[in-house]
Amino acid sequence: MTRTVDLNADMGESFGPWVMGSDADLLRVITSANIACGFHAGDWDVMAQTMREAVANGTGIGAHPGFPDLQGFGRRRMDLPQDSLRNLVRYQLGAARAMAAAEGGVVRHLKLHGMLANMASADAAMARACYQGALDVDPDIIIMVLAATAQQQAAEDLGCTWAGEIFADRAYNDDATLVDRSLPGAVIHDAALAGRRMVDMVRSGAIITESGKHIPAAVDTICLHGDGKTALDIARSVKAALEADGVTLKPFAGRKGTVG
Amino acid sequence: MTRTVDLNADMGESFGPWVMGSDADLLRVITSANIACGFHAGDWDVMAQTMREAVANGTGIGAHPGFPDLQGFGRRRMDLPQDSLRNLVRYQLGAARAMAAAEGGVVRHLKLHGMLANMASADAAMARACYQGALDVDPDIIIMVLAATAQQQAAEDLGCTWAGEIFADRAYNDDATLVDRSLPGAVIHDAALAGRRMVDMVRSGAIITESGKHIPAAVDTICLHGDGKTALDIARSVKAALEADGVTLKPFAGRKGTVG
Amino acid sequence: MTRTVDLNADMGESFGPWVMGSDADLLRVITSANIACGFHAGDWDVMAQTMREAVANGTGIGAHPGFPDLQGFGRRRMDLPQDSLRNLVRYQLGAARAMAAAEGGVVRHLKLHGMLANMASADAAMARACYQGALDVDPDIIIMVLAATAQQQAAEDLGCTWAGEIFADRAYNDDATLVDRSLPGAVIHDAALAGRRMVDMVRSGAIITESGKHIPAAVDTICLHGDGKTALDIARSVKAALEADGVTLKPFAGRKGTVG
Amino acid sequence: MTRTVDLNADMGESFGPWVMGSDADLLRVITSANIACGFHAGDWDVMAQTMREAVANGTGIGAHPGFPDLQGFGRRRMDLPQDSLRNLVRYQLGAARAMAAAEGGVVRHLKLHGMLANMASADAAMARACYQGALDVDPDIIIMVLAATAQQQAAEDLGCTWAGEIFADRAYNDDATLVDRSLPGAVIHDAALAGRRMVDMVRSGAIITESGKHIPAAVDTICLHGDGKTALDIARSVKAALEADGVTLKPFAGRKGTVG
Repeated sequence: MTRTVDLNADMGESFGPWVMGSDADLLRVITSANIACGFHAGDWDVMAQTMREAVANGTGIGAHPGFPDLQGFGRRRMDLPQDSLRNLVRYQLGAARAMAAAEGGVVRHLKLHGMLANMASADAAMARACYQGALDVDPDIIIMVLAATAQQQAAEDLGCTWAGEIFADRAYNDDATLVDRSLPGAVIHDAALAGRRMVDMVRSGAIITESGKHIPAAVDTICLHGDGKTALDIARSVKAALEADGVTLKPFAGRKGTVG
Repeated sequence: MTRTVDLNADMGESFGPWVMGSDADLLRVITSANIACGFHAGDWDVMAQTMREAVANGTGIGAHPGFPDLQGFGRRRMDLPQDSLRNLVRYQLGAARAMAAAEGGVVRHLKLHGMLANMASADAAMARACYQGALDVDPDIIIMVLAATAQQQAAEDLGCTWAGEIFADRAYNDDATLVDRSLPGAVIHDAALAGRRMVDMVRSGAIITESGKHIPAAVDTICLHGDGKTALDIARSVKAALEADGVTLKPFAGRKGTVG
Repeated sequence: MTRTVDLNADMGESFGPWVMGSDADLLRVITSANIACGFHAGDWDVMAQTMREAVANGTGIGAHPGFPDLQGFGRRRMDLPQDSLRNLVRYQLGAARAMAAAEGGVVRHLKLHGMLANMASADAAMARACYQGALDVDPDIIIMVLAATAQQQAAEDLGCTWAGEIFADRAYNDDATLVDRSLPGAVIHDAALAGRRMVDMVRSGAIITESGKHIPAAVDTICLHGDGKTALDIARSVKAALEADGVTLKPFAGRKGTVG
Repeated sequence: MTRTVDLNADMGESFGPWVMGSDADLLRVITSANIACGFHAGDWDVMAQTMREAVANGTGIGAHPGFPDLQGFGRRRMDLPQDSLRNLVRYQLGAARAMAAAEGGVVRHLKLHGMLANMASADAAMARACYQGALDVDPDIIIMVLAATAQQQAAEDLGCTWAGEIFADRAYNDDATLVDRSLPGAVIHDAALAGRRMVDMVRSGAIITESGKHIPAAVDTICLHGDGKTALDIARSVKAALEADGVTLKPFAGRKGTVG
């Protein structure tokens, strides 16, 4: 059986005169890009440029909506009513679809950004409000969810197409939550170790926790980063390790229904 | 021969807690709505609400992009490079399309707002950049142009579908430009007069200037306003006068090519 | 003994083309104005105009900083680190001081706006961070606090000059918190009743709860509103009732230390 | 006679998560810092940090107001009425004064940023509106002007204290305007050459044009940049060359009246 997985990363996070990230380097590694939509990062010019590059690279394009908070980069908690969250996602997805279409691309997936994602991973009703906003605009869009969180639950409840995501550089607790960043070992800085872990998780179709427990999960895509040398080293190591293990790297197809 | 014309007005210009305009009143008069896209006015919640109302009223929906300038309401000159203008229109149109689609509607037309429109009415290259941005997203969109200006020239040059607009409440010079607001008679405050003028212009298919000159023009839609009692009176008077003259009021179909 | 109290209201909450509030009407009633600083409402032009009017009326001028959230009018929860809150207040107070000075006025007091105020009334550490920011800029500024809340505690802890505020139109629980808006009687719409209540509270130097309990409190200023006829009626009724009772209405002097 | 000159550079141009410039490196070279005020760059946290560093280094602190245009970095033309420009400068200067005061510093000077500066250097009425806004807040502030432009004329007309600025890395025409960037030699990339030119201009108290003409000018401060290795090399070369020539580098005192 051919095993496949997707590698995703956030892109298009520059804003006006300010540059962020190593988009060109990342595009050589990833198969799906989550592109900022102008609320927490990105602007109309950055989006046009990023869409162009993603199309040129054949990268799967995703909208990456966030809170309306440039100064906080969408990483600060904001409390918005659910209908406003739904409208917020509709708006940003629409902008992304237009920017992609104008460059000959198509938005295939949607991934929530930053604190919006964090909150939605613990609050299925909030996740549903966001995802419903996306489905209102495009019923066929693939929702990228943090595997085994309330995000996944919301996608399953909505009956939409979704893809499960795991982290290359974060340790997991036995309940599939992430080990708190303040604890030792929470963040993985060793590129070789990150590669081996991803091979193991893709092979087993499971999140493997710090204690060694296997939690069956939808391992459809692996989240990588591009900020700094360590992150790029990890990204490249994960790619190389998976390819060496015979895994095909390509955009996820998405799945329906529940994972058992 | 059945004569038809469209009545348009700007809508959805509230922002956050701040209300602007008489959208509910206007919806009973107009056949096409130009809906702000969040850059000079409007936000994701205002847009959702406005789209919902426009759909419920069967009003033709248009995107109304403007400069990124809330505090100045898009009425201040800004100098953006042409590719940035193109991207700006793509982005706002995309957002509008999504907001409309989510409420069961479709964006049929695009009209530039405020100073962006003013500048484009005197600068065909600038108008082309904006319109190209719209056509990149939706090749079938109808571009609403200020009749007999560089906007119309740009639409003709692009070979796209367009509709010509005249003003209900502004006097025209003999070169089809508007009489300067500082001059007496430039702005029409008499609702009955506005109604009669529009009947005459629709009958003759021409802009009728202050001096009485007839300039053949694409009289496809009439621009109305909803800010204050006078504006609403004019809007209602124009509607009543046209209906009394046997004119059918409905969204424009758009036209191709030049007006001779 | 001459009894005095201050009447305060929020002002300068227009933004760009959008008008909010009845500032001119309120200025005839209040003795202190809390002027928005451009983050949740107001802008440089609105502030200049509002400062000018407040100076012309001899109204006590206050800075009214809020969360950086125009679309949400500073009424949405945002989580900012305490040093960022401190910086946020410094910035907004500085802007207000300059706008006041340029019109011949002086910022005497500071009152937190909206959700920033709500959160600070329940979180003394957060209130301290905000007030410290203000005192860093002006050690003599008078901090307006919601009487008998964590805001007052923070001001007392800092040893600064402060003034206690009560609401004209809100019912109180026996622990000095406000009755939840969803409960009957929580908001007072009867202008005459509001006037009588304020007379009673100013006479007794206490918050009088729904059950009739008297909680000794720093009744230095009464919060009024100017949005709509009911609010203005209440404002005028409170003013008239207090004056009829022999109370002098004038800007608070501020107090130091604790209330027992 | 002791010759002295000031070296200035823009600082605090980061925003939220986005870093710009080499502030730490520049602080070792310059004697005056022009600190962004949150409209075209900078925010309340960046300003606090930048003020702290400037105070720690004993650097002269200046407010650096710009157009309200983050995405365009204040480099795009915007047309604001003169009273709005005046208010805009008041607001930003006020914010800067508070941020400085809270860190134990004082804003000594004001320099316009980007396109606001460009436009004001050709339009004395616009420059006066901006400078009047600054003087309304602080009559003793030193206005940094582009020497021999309409900015200088405006400062002279206002009778305020001012300091004249020349560029280390730009060639001058014989009318004291800058050689257009599109022409060869307009921008100086040779650090040693930049150093020699500045020594010559400081010695002669004149702008020396490309043709060798000497235009007597107020050579009070030299504008340096910190974006990239070339800019830093030029900054360091200018500093070293002036020191080797016996020039004392320190914040300008400002001057009154005209230069003849």
